[in-house]
Amino acid sequence: MNTLKVKQSKWILTEEGTDPEIIRQNETLFALSNGHFGTRGSLEEINSPSKYSNSEATLVNAFYDSEPIEYGEWAYGYAKEHQTIIPVPNGKKITLKLDHEIFDLEAGKTTKHKRELDLKKGILKRTFTWENTQGHKIDVEIIRFVSYDHKELLAQKITVTPYNDNNELEIITELDDLKELGSRKKDTSKDPRVKEQGERRFHSERFKKDSVDLLHIETNHTKCHLIVGEKDKLKGFKSPIYNKNNSEKFIVKTKKGKPVVLERLVAYSNMFDEEDKQEEIAQKTATILNETSVLGFENLLEKHIKHMEKFWNMSDIEIEGNDELQVGLRFNLFHLHQAAGRDGKRNMSAKGLTGEGYEGHYFWDTEMYMLSFFLYTQPEIAKQLLTYRYTILEEARNRARIMSIDEGALFAWRTINGKEASPYYPAGTAQIHINGDIAHAIYTYIKVTGDKHFGMNEGLEILVETARFYANWGHYDEKREGAFVLNNVTGPDEYTAIVNNNYYTNLMAKHNFKYAIEMVEATLESNEERGKDVLERINFKHPELENWKNAQKKMFLPYDEEQGLTMQDDSFFHKEVWDLKHTPKEKFPLLLHYHPLTIYRYQVNKQADTILAQFIFSHAFSHDQKVRDYNYYESVTTHDSSLSRSVFGMMASELGFMQKAYTYFMDTALMDLSDLQSNTRDGVHAANMGGTWMSMVYGFGGLRLIGDRLNFNPRLPKEWQAVTFKVTFRGRIIKVSIKKEKTEYKLIEGEPLVINHFNEERQLK
Amino acid sequence: MNTLKVKQSKWILTEEGTDPEIIRQNETLFALSNGHFGTRGSLEEINSPSKYSNSEATLVNAFYDSEPIEYGEWAYGYAKEHQTIIPVPNGKKITLKLDHEIFDLEAGKTTKHKRELDLKKGILKRTFTWENTQGHKIDVEIIRFVSYDHKELLAQKITVTPYNDNNELEIITELDDLKELGSRKKDTSKDPRVKEQGERRFHSERFKKDSVDLLHIETNHTKCHLIVGEKDKLKGFKSPIYNKNNSEKFIVKTKKGKPVVLERLVAYSNMFDEEDKQEEIAQKTATILNETSVLGFENLLEKHIKHMEKFWNMSDIEIEGNDELQVGLRFNLFHLHQAAGRDGKRNMSAKGLTGEGYEGHYFWDTEMYMLSFFLYTQPEIAKQLLTYRYTILEEARNRARIMSIDEGALFAWRTINGKEASPYYPAGTAQIHINGDIAHAIYTYIKVTGDKHFGMNEGLEILVETARFYANWGHYDEKREGAFVLNNVTGPDEYTAIVNNNYYTNLMAKHNFKYAIEMVEATLESNEERGKDVLERINFKHPELENWKNAQKKMFLPYDEEQGLTMQDDSFFHKEVWDLKHTPKEKFPLLLHYHPLTIYRYQVNKQADTILAQFIFSHAFSHDQKVRDYNYYESVTTHDSSLSRSVFGMMASELGFMQKAYTYFMDTALMDLSDLQSNTRDGVHAANMGGTWMSMVYGFGGLRLIGDRLNFNPRLPKEWQAVTFKVTFRGRIIKVSIKKEKTEYKLIEGEPLVINHFNEERQLK
Repeated sequence: MNTLKVKQSKWILTEEGTDPEIIRQNETLFALSNGHFGTRGSLEEINSPSKYSNSEATLVNAFYDSEPIEYGEWAYGYAKEHQTIIPVPNGKKITLKLDHEIFDLEAGKTTKHKRELDLKKGILKRTFTWENTQGHKIDVEIIRFVSYDHKELLAQKITVTPYNDNNELEIITELDDLKELGSRKKDTSKDPRVKEQGERRFHSERFKKDSVDLLHIETNHTKCHLIVGEKDKLKGFKSPIYNKNNSEKFIVKTKKGKPVVLERLVAYSNMFDEEDKQEEIAQKTATILNETSVLGFENLLEKHIKHMEKFWNMSDIEIEGNDELQVGLRFNLFHLHQAAGRDGKRNMSAKGLTGEGYEGHYFWDTEMYMLSFFLYTQPEIAKQLLTYRYTILEEARNRARIMSIDEGALFAWRTINGKEASPYYPAGTAQIHINGDIAHAIYTYIKVTGDKHFGMNEGLEILVETARFYANWGHYDEKREGAFVLNNVTGPDEYTAIVNNNYYTNLMAKHNFKYAIEMVEATLESNEERGKDVLERINFKHPELENWKNAQKKMFLPYDEEQGLTMQDDSFFHKEVWDLKHTPKEKFPLLLHYHPLTIYRYQVNKQADTILAQFIFSHAFSHDQKVRDYNYYESVTTHDSSLSRSVFGMMASELGFMQKAYTYFMDTALMDLSDLQSNTRDGVHAANMGGTWMSMVYGFGGLRLIGDRLNFNPRLPKEWQAVTFKVTFRGRIIKVSIKKEKTEYKLIEGEPLVINHFNEERQLK
Repeated sequence: MNTLKVKQSKWILTEEGTDPEIIRQNETLFALSNGHFGTRGSLEEINSPSKYSNSEATLVNAFYDSEPIEYGEWAYGYAKEHQTIIPVPNGKKITLKLDHEIFDLEAGKTTKHKRELDLKKGILKRTFTWENTQGHKIDVEIIRFVSYDHKELLAQKITVTPYNDNNELEIITELDDLKELGSRKKDTSKDPRVKEQGERRFHSERFKKDSVDLLHIETNHTKCHLIVGEKDKLKGFKSPIYNKNNSEKFIVKTKKGKPVVLERLVAYSNMFDEEDKQEEIAQKTATILNETSVLGFENLLEKHIKHMEKFWNMSDIEIEGNDELQVGLRFNLFHLHQAAGRDGKRNMSAKGLTGEGYEGHYFWDTEMYMLSFFLYTQPEIAKQLLTYRYTILEEARNRARIMSIDEGALFAWRTINGKEASPYYPAGTAQIHINGDIAHAIYTYIKVTGDKHFGMNEGLEILVETARFYANWGHYDEKREGAFVLNNVTGPDEYTAIVNNNYYTNLMAKHNFKYAIEMVEATLESNEERGKDVLERINFKHPELENWKNAQKKMFLPYDEEQGLTMQDDSFFHKEVWDLKHTPKEKFPLLLHYHPLTIYRYQVNKQADTILAQFIFSHAFSHDQKVRDYNYYESVTTHDSSLSRSVFGMMASELGFMQKAYTYFMDTALMDLSDLQSNTRDGVHAANMGGTWMSMVYGFGGLRLIGDRLNFNPRLPKEWQAVTFKVTFRGRIIKVSIKKEKTEYKLIEGEPLVINHFNEERQLK
């Protein structure tokens, strides 16, 4: 399983040598991003076909193309179009020539090849020595980073130090507009989690502005626009610049030991819904490049490192007792930070911007797995992520109408533009729990930040519309003494589909009603005119409140009295138990080896479902109940989904199963570094990375928000000496240091507050 | 609804004039076929684009092409390839020219245009008078039939009677190899019941043998081969024959009043699994054409009419009291007779050979709707239809393995070649009742015919393999006191999918066990070595018998004690009742206007499901039970499937609801003639035609086979004076005449036997 070939320190991932076997995986691990755009950790000189055949992609968040979804058999209301994030021009392509010989890992002799991802600084550094076939040598260092200060900017510095005089060194940079993309190695996998690669899905046009080379690209079907620009600066040498169509060539005569330095800046300016502003954006892009070029690479880097310091200062989690884990954990936080859209128009895809897996779609992962990290460390980003949901609320209303639900909104199961893009509704549209997930995230956001403005505007509107949807989807079942039921749904566990009364879904819907009731009542009782305006605008009628109260009260929550077990859904226990013990290893994940009707017919789970519900509302369940359910559901769960282990781990912490908690955590924390799911090449498992943070803070830290108060029930695995992290809560910053003997809570910033430590109040001042 | 423009006599459907609005529908109604091949009732001269834009197709049973099924999201075990019956060269294309002017309905002046489908004789006759723009006139008569005596043969006779001397008359015949097919009007409907048309899916080669023009065609992907040949004979005139590539041209100078007669024969020789015998088949085709040409049209027609007489003599149902219904009923029997494959390698598609709807696939329709007619009138055809199932048993075994069922066979829900071709498994593969349907048909065939040879060979093997499948799919549910349950299936009603314990499925499976047990025990007790050989070959083990007995005994049959209603499945009554009363007319069929998750969430049926189960085993239910269930299920059924009304009609007869029975029957009997389902243009509803026969014989005749005895419980609707039909049973032919005052049973042929008339024994001698 562990095919990772990186050495680790507490802050740095190091790859030594090169290995074609894991090149794609490491491209994912070494991807750099800032939420606006990302670029995979591919080698600068790579061209296919080579044994180092790559899966290079530079991805701009929400920059996608569409095509009709083909169905073997169509039915009404099916998702109409694929939405597919597409690779945009590669700004990293650099060709080195020494005496007309092109540098390549397969030409001449490369030694001391090393790459380091410095998590602390947020840079990727590559160094090597190359000797060409004539015996001439150079040392090469290439540093790149994706700027947080200038969200459009990819900065690179190439330093070539020659061993000889008078060699002719050429550095050719290129804004690769992917005309060759068709020849890229096609992934013909049928794995539904992978999107086939290979097509160039835009047309492009080159032009100049203020002496900057620009490229305007426009996607084939969605007509998304992007301006890409580049600016190179050769330092210490003079060279004529051969500017030929899509590349710039610098030629210098080497002086032994004297470094040739090229600084290269590439900018990606997304014209989100602004196609008429091409001129303006082009100008802006040229200006950014001209200004940042004047500033220079070192100054840009300095600012970048400061940003990273600030980030780490708030978001780092320190573990004493395991360095490998320490770097793994930081790796996850680093990628989480990289993945989040920050402008309220874009969200956070299941693979971040590290790969094309899942087509760059946003799922419930954002709210249920990744949001917590931001909520408690960078709540302004959390707000932007939730604001995105507000921008697609109208599409969610449309979707509800398509589903013949006359009131309310149903968020798409997977989407970029808000429209449903899941071509398989039993594990797509049927997962109506996404409404409750979003509602829960919004309510929690309001509680944690105290952001009433959001709460009485966007938040309120979403809570009402999601609650309305459930009120209309469900009905009161006379055969269940008038309980409110939600039929024909799929819960988080995708190995069980189209069932009645999925426990998780019903519990989330119940809380969705609760949240909507609370926020509507607060609005009606308050003097806030905004909230009242929202309610009027969306035509809220008072009887709705009664309906929701009734549905909330009568919500059916399936339970097996005989076994004392919570039922995943009405029929789960009527099925046969899958014989996991005798299922050969190569048959996992089951979804790739068994027909859905085979899988659905058994008691077998892809991921946490009922246990997730119990984790979220853990204070509402007795310890014994949670233990019984845990033991049972764990026995039928394959963890074929990367969303599973972290939940089982956190619940294990809560229940005091510390060995289990530790094991799950270690798998979770190192999932991508160890390629546990065997598909890291397609991108990181961002939700699992969020799960890692949750495992630390909610799991071992035992953090729960109950009512308006933070509660901590810290439990440290015996393997560790100490864990330290910070959380922000309503303007405060609290540092939590969990040690074997005791836990310290320190108010770093903000007004005094009261927290609970194992049900015992603590005043923090 | 009633857009049909045909006048009717007791035997003849007449179309007067031409109407572009209904041309496609009438092409279906006027289609001719013999089970081997069929040809739509399109006009000879039609070329698109014209306002008489046609949907011409000549179809050879099981002559199909394939292409991969595209899925928006793939999953393991999905059907891999479409199987699509494809139009083969059109042998009906004839061009008439008078003084170089081409006859066309839109050129010159056509009068007295009339077409008659003579059901008694099995011929289609067209007559009209044409006056060209120069005022020259001709009378034209074209007769065509598809031969039963020579299954390859389409025979046509064109008679042109001129009004003037010395006009130049040209008759150009053509074996249209569909090179123009791409330009045919494409049906872009998303209706899942329609297959898009438009592509030529074969390549062709012309050659000659024994001076006969032949065309060899081979499908693009399946490599199915067909030899098509033509032979024309001009009578009474001499004409040079201009043979140019794909057409023959005859030119004569007219003599006023002297008919010009052209006899045209076209042969379709399917090379089923015999691609290496091209030479031989070509020779055979040439010989057939040469010999039948010598025989001449009139002699061929005489033989054909004799065949039809024999058919009607056994299969006709006479009704006194309604001539329109009489011809409608005969129309249905005529098309049923036309549709059935007769060689054990081909079956009977849902549209017969009258259109491309449902891609020429075979469904459960054959066994459950169409077989009865053959079973009791032409049992040798029934045997051939069941033999087809035996030829695909190996594919059914493979399908079971794909579904992770280690023993037994699962027949494909829709198929030509035996492989599953349903791209939507919830209403495809999940319909595992097809196994029980086939088992029931086989058992009934054995009982009705006494064909022990089939019973101890093919029949036995299928019964064992289908029973094995159910034994492995289901399990004993401890939560239901150890009842045997079948989970995650779809019953006949496709508005409810992926449920547990569909009543119909469970009851059919229970009987499948019963039939397998009975036949295996009979085999083991008999001296028949064949049957024992079969059991040995398929590795039958004695404990299986015990398993089946146990499963049969413990089969779970869901029942609601409180309401006294049979439950369609475990969860049906937990759903909301669909508000049919307030559903606008234009929203039917629901499947085209609501998402599956909307439809599945309600108590609403596309078609008879539980009522079908009760009809099949009607003697096992009390009258009261049947009445309660009938009233309830009728109230939630849309009859959006053409398979529904006939069942409700038969059950109404049984329960004495004669007005309902009559209304359902009238809709059933005239479904295609009145275009009740609005899609007759895509082909006839063959299953419903079978339902018509069943409605007469099982419904009004009240025929039930109980044990080894025929039971009749005749009930005549008040609108009719008498109904007469014949049935064959174990070598006897019985004529049943139901009149208002009494019913007469007359043994026409065979040994004496005892039947029941309303539980009263009658000796027939």
